[in-house]
Amino acid sequence: MSNASSNFLTWAKNRQAHIEQVLEQTLPPADATPQKLHIAMRYSALGGGKRIRALLCYAAAELCDTNANVADAAACAVELIHAYSLVHDDMPCMDDDDLRRGKPSCHKQYDDATALLVGDALQSLAFDALSTPGLCSNAAQQVSMLNLLAKSSGSLGMAGGQAIDLSAVGKALTQNELEAMHRLKTGALIQASVLLGAYHADEKLVAMHTYAQAIGLAFQVIDDILDVEADTLTLGKTAGKDANSNKPTYVTILGLPQAKQLAKELYTSAINALAPYGEKAQRLRELAAFIMQRNS
Amino acid sequence: MSNASSNFLTWAKNRQAHIEQVLEQTLPPADATPQKLHIAMRYSALGGGKRIRALLCYAAAELCDTNANVADAAACAVELIHAYSLVHDDMPCMDDDDLRRGKPSCHKQYDDATALLVGDALQSLAFDALSTPGLCSNAAQQVSMLNLLAKSSGSLGMAGGQAIDLSAVGKALTQNELEAMHRLKTGALIQASVLLGAYHADEKLVAMHTYAQAIGLAFQVIDDILDVEADTLTLGKTAGKDANSNKPTYVTILGLPQAKQLAKELYTSAINALAPYGEKAQRLRELAAFIMQRNS
Repeated sequence: MSNASSNFLTWAKNRQAHIEQVLEQTLPPADATPQKLHIAMRYSALGGGKRIRALLCYAAAELCDTNANVADAAACAVELIHAYSLVHDDMPCMDDDDLRRGKPSCHKQYDDATALLVGDALQSLAFDALSTPGLCSNAAQQVSMLNLLAKSSGSLGMAGGQAIDLSAVGKALTQNELEAMHRLKTGALIQASVLLGAYHADEKLVAMHTYAQAIGLAFQVIDDILDVEADTLTLGKTAGKDANSNKPTYVTILGLPQAKQLAKELYTSAINALAPYGEKAQRLRELAAFIMQRNS
Repeated sequence: MSNASSNFLTWAKNRQAHIEQVLEQTLPPADATPQKLHIAMRYSALGGGKRIRALLCYAAAELCDTNANVADAAACAVELIHAYSLVHDDMPCMDDDDLRRGKPSCHKQYDDATALLVGDALQSLAFDALSTPGLCSNAAQQVSMLNLLAKSSGSLGMAGGQAIDLSAVGKALTQNELEAMHRLKTGALIQASVLLGAYHADEKLVAMHTYAQAIGLAFQVIDDILDVEADTLTLGKTAGKDANSNKPTYVTILGLPQAKQLAKELYTSAINALAPYGEKAQRLRELAAFIMQRNS
């Protein structure tokens, strides 16, 4: 392992431990009423995942010298939105998945009604965390961050992407249609993670947009490849699920070699977009590589 | 009908039509992608309900001279949160109710997965609407409004109340436990409706809090009475549902006459709390009476 990648992994481990602590403190304690709901919220939001969204947020925040409390709140908010979407996604009326991050998914561990409320309450908590009064010295900027989070999560963002995903089962999509779906389903929140971390650095936001879009899509292409290539144990969720359920994926549309080629091209555009930032963007480059090389 | 009440009803009708228009413009158009999701969101959020929360918000806004755009955004946000909660509440894993506002509930009209996403996206849209950049001349106040909305909706507010409600089925609750549940389940958002409308009028917020708490609880007591006394057609949702499903209600705990007495007492405290505002609080008084006299 090179020094650079060892250095990156140390940074990532440190940030993962840190966001875990931030989430731990943001979630109501397990003994607060209603206890069952809070225990289930903590079960679903703590102790798992690579925290890619938080890492992107922190890397962008470091690049742009964003205030540490603002970066924490933003990273926490995107991870809470992501956690809520996983809980609802796994429910029987959606993907009906029993396994998440190597543990029983929320509705299996508790029940469907609890999972529904856990997702609902995690979404509220994301907006709660980012709307802490006095968080940003510039309140107007905080309002804009909240607006970005809301739009990335809603019907023209993540939830909209999930709706398209649902209606796509069993349909033949073109690559463009698949890309449009993923731009919303996973891309919108990944993009928001980068932009919220970078928020006040307006002058270079176009480059950041390009990086975030490319890396968001690469993330999904790799997801589709892993769905075919990885096993359930490594993945921590049911492998082969998308292919088996007749969902269009980059692999089913392009074939495995072309999907890998596309991922590489997206990685290259992401890296190229960071050129204006020079050396300072090293973490974001390393994160792009990390997303490419992940095996789960 | 007295002049005063005719005047109130004209005002209420005007405000109901107005919030309908605000919601209509805030919801993405039916032809925006993903169309099915947007059509279902509009189905669930438009064209129904008494809009009690919006009316409370507007009445408080008029009393406190809140800017009209701010009042619109706040009224819209609380109605969207309310609409999302109804969609999720009606789902099979929750109350499993086929009827809402006299129409098939969202999951009956569409399907469970769509209803799940409709609720999720309506919640995001509520925060989107209230976080429009530049909405409040004082952005710090807007951040606080968003924080109040988030806290009222989350696990220590509405969603928490629903979790307690779920766990209460078949249990004997004391009146205090029932009240604690309803303070979260319906009370938190009704209180937020009043406070968001009144937001900048800090000096009198204590009185507004008292009014909002009392009227929120009275609303629920009346709900429980109507569940027993009204028929399904008038109610627009399944009558007798709570009593039949072995849920503790004010009527099952106190009996019908005592429940009616409690509603009257809460009404009186709500009215008394408004004394500091004098004549200017007339709409809020009329709204309290409206909530008491409603038959659905």
